[in-house]
Amino acid sequence: MPKEGITPRDQDYSQWYLDIVRGADMADYAEVVRGCIVFKPTGYAIWEAMQSGLDQRIKATGHVNAYFPLLIPKSFLMKEAEHVEGFAPEVAEVTHAAGEELAEPYVIRPTSETIIGYFYAKWVRSWRDLPVLINQWANVMRWEMRTRPFLRTAEFLWQEGHTVHATEADAEQETLMILHDVYGDFIERDMAVPVIKGVKSEKEKFAGALRSYALEAMMQDGRALQAGTSHNLGQNFAKAFDITYTDQNNTVQHAWTTSWGVSTRLIGALIMTHSDDEGLVLPPRLAPTQVVVVPIYKNDQERSTVLETIERLTADWSGRLRFKIDDRDNLTPGYKFNEWELKGVPVRIEVGPKDVQKGSVAMARRDIPGKEGKQFVPQAGLTERITELLEIIQQGLYDRALRFREERTFTVSSYDELREAVEQGFARCYWAGSTADEKRIQDELKATIRVIPLEQPDTAGCCILTGQETTQQVIFARAY
Amino acid sequence: MPKEGITPRDQDYSQWYLDIVRGADMADYAEVVRGCIVFKPTGYAIWEAMQSGLDQRIKATGHVNAYFPLLIPKSFLMKEAEHVEGFAPEVAEVTHAAGEELAEPYVIRPTSETIIGYFYAKWVRSWRDLPVLINQWANVMRWEMRTRPFLRTAEFLWQEGHTVHATEADAEQETLMILHDVYGDFIERDMAVPVIKGVKSEKEKFAGALRSYALEAMMQDGRALQAGTSHNLGQNFAKAFDITYTDQNNTVQHAWTTSWGVSTRLIGALIMTHSDDEGLVLPPRLAPTQVVVVPIYKNDQERSTVLETIERLTADWSGRLRFKIDDRDNLTPGYKFNEWELKGVPVRIEVGPKDVQKGSVAMARRDIPGKEGKQFVPQAGLTERITELLEIIQQGLYDRALRFREERTFTVSSYDELREAVEQGFARCYWAGSTADEKRIQDELKATIRVIPLEQPDTAGCCILTGQETTQQVIFARAY
Repeated sequence: MPKEGITPRDQDYSQWYLDIVRGADMADYAEVVRGCIVFKPTGYAIWEAMQSGLDQRIKATGHVNAYFPLLIPKSFLMKEAEHVEGFAPEVAEVTHAAGEELAEPYVIRPTSETIIGYFYAKWVRSWRDLPVLINQWANVMRWEMRTRPFLRTAEFLWQEGHTVHATEADAEQETLMILHDVYGDFIERDMAVPVIKGVKSEKEKFAGALRSYALEAMMQDGRALQAGTSHNLGQNFAKAFDITYTDQNNTVQHAWTTSWGVSTRLIGALIMTHSDDEGLVLPPRLAPTQVVVVPIYKNDQERSTVLETIERLTADWSGRLRFKIDDRDNLTPGYKFNEWELKGVPVRIEVGPKDVQKGSVAMARRDIPGKEGKQFVPQAGLTERITELLEIIQQGLYDRALRFREERTFTVSSYDELREAVEQGFARCYWAGSTADEKRIQDELKATIRVIPLEQPDTAGCCILTGQETTQQVIFARAY
Repeated sequence: MPKEGITPRDQDYSQWYLDIVRGADMADYAEVVRGCIVFKPTGYAIWEAMQSGLDQRIKATGHVNAYFPLLIPKSFLMKEAEHVEGFAPEVAEVTHAAGEELAEPYVIRPTSETIIGYFYAKWVRSWRDLPVLINQWANVMRWEMRTRPFLRTAEFLWQEGHTVHATEADAEQETLMILHDVYGDFIERDMAVPVIKGVKSEKEKFAGALRSYALEAMMQDGRALQAGTSHNLGQNFAKAFDITYTDQNNTVQHAWTTSWGVSTRLIGALIMTHSDDEGLVLPPRLAPTQVVVVPIYKNDQERSTVLETIERLTADWSGRLRFKIDDRDNLTPGYKFNEWELKGVPVRIEVGPKDVQKGSVAMARRDIPGKEGKQFVPQAGLTERITELLEIIQQGLYDRALRFREERTFTVSSYDELREAVEQGFARCYWAGSTADEKRIQDELKATIRVIPLEQPDTAGCCILTGQETTQQVIFARAY
């Protein structure tokens, strides 16, 4: 029986997504500010957990945080030819301030390569100043026509790393290190979302990059979602902004730069990877609340006995588990179960008068809804049992998502097979086509090359479109 | 002997401040974005430490974080009469987006009472929804004419809390709780900055508030700096945005709201409270690096012996002390000492070949520059000794700042005394004047009422201007 207020996934995936966001009270539409949302406390807490996991990894790999201006002189955008083409059509412009028209308008940053490039040009002088390894947590704005909470909003939150290196090899190493050790590690371990890492095609790469790497995840409707990108910018921005350094032979050289980012879009990816028709499902490592304890009682005496037991059971949880005791007195247990299911709390513990007598509790897993995921367990050793269960759930969510992706990934060798495959999920095929060919496929099948995976086969094959022999395989899919 | 590049405080306090910011590499002027700065890594790391200390307290007192849109429809500002007067003259306006002129311009938030008020009106329905206790970490923009890094910049970073309550008493309690338990506790304990808590005069209160509370600190030039504010907004914004709730008797009531904020201005307060002519001085609890260890050696063999000892000594520091081992090989110890003094690291440990032999190290305190603050101590028990010293330094900085403020706070009873006192520091006096009287004093003495302190005398006295008898004392001072 579907949960009230949630459209089942197989009926309307798109509406299901909106129902989950609303049911878990994660966001509100800011209809008075076009294309924007409010990140409500439940949604924002997930972003805080993501920030924490990412920030640790960003710092552990030698980066420091800083903060650059929100506004960018409009002329800065024009300095890098591809960049302006990519971003100028979607910027918001500040033309007036303090009641007067500005001599030159500013744009609200859609991304910060240009303004940061300007400062790096001032700061970098010698090879001794390199590498520069800086990250920024910030809001950015891209005036999008269509909005979906978290997935596509005019204003969103993200981190953007911007680094400067002496050599192409150093820049490439940084780009790949971020892809693997920061993004890949965080998304797979903490978010339990399996990803395919690869290079973007020319058509899909970042406006101004030499080469863009990305991590692609499969959502439950078989579509791809780009979970993060890491760009080797080559010398494009170094030349546009004159970021140069004097090398050890006293020669002035253009530097090599990178940029990389993940955003609040990851919240959308998290929802669409794990959640079900009962509501949000959160992986334990990211869940702001990992365990909710619900007391069950019929009268004041039962209430106080049950709450005493709960207090005793949870006495050693602080610092070990993130938990809530839901002792609200005006709500039924059923109402509470429903609310915490909607909000995706991984484990629910129920304690009633019989449990007090028997020395047991009921323990329910959010990832396996209904009776199947509920069991009675002894109170003795409960903390350890829950800790173990959280690890099992974390791994289980990852395994389930990986299995789903594998089942929906098809190796195809004809255009007809490709057409069928992208209706279901990912299509893996040999590819030697041009950007124009890729555009043709996008027009016909609404699918694009998501990545050229880093892992490639040893043998050659025929391009699915041109028939030309090639060793390069790509992933085609429809994408968010 | 003054340090190279730092103007002594007694020569030019204002230039000294800028020299400290530059010497510690905390910020850069964003001359291409009017009135903005870059928060460089050294400066931003202090903000991160402040965020951490504040966020813990904000959450411990029952609040949750959320995120509201950057842009506010311009018409929203107009809905609260005092608010528009206070903020409309200094907003930046977005008039175009995606290449088209907008039907209604947006302003970049100068503060978020209006946009948040709009959402609270949607969310609050019943007394059961109250209180709403939400905080936001965000950037805001106020188009200021004069800029000083951290103290006054067009864009700055802050937290802004916005709460909704059923009764006036609840709103007042919240406002005061924030003043004492969040801001007072953080600023005095973590920043080691003593503050005077009080109410703002009508002239100085927040545009739209019923009553503004503030914490005022004294800088080393005797001027006041407002370190944080907590506003009881009464029903002003609830009426402007129609935030109503149905009470337990089924009657619709306007709610009561509060707002409260501290900003990156606190970094300026920190600098101007503790730093000296040698550079930045950071209180240990906030210092991103608490201890720096500098190896001293003349050759490779000494280097390896000394670094071995350092490795052994610091083996148990992780998780207990925030430290750096400065093993850069191309710089002299003198250069390193200078750099870490400029950056305000509280404790420096020096280890040379003689120390290795003797089982000792040199330990230097940043808060007592020169030989006086340096001593040789045994290697045994070093971790505990440093931990103790950090506590001593933390308390010492607070005590020194408090003593300074007390020495520069004068109880005055004539206008001439007031004139003299505000040249030096704070003037405490009886006051029964009007807003017009306060403006006159501001014109004549460049001093304003900083606060009406919460702690008031038991006895009455004569107003310093009007001669009228009153029990109310105020603090006059020149302010940042």
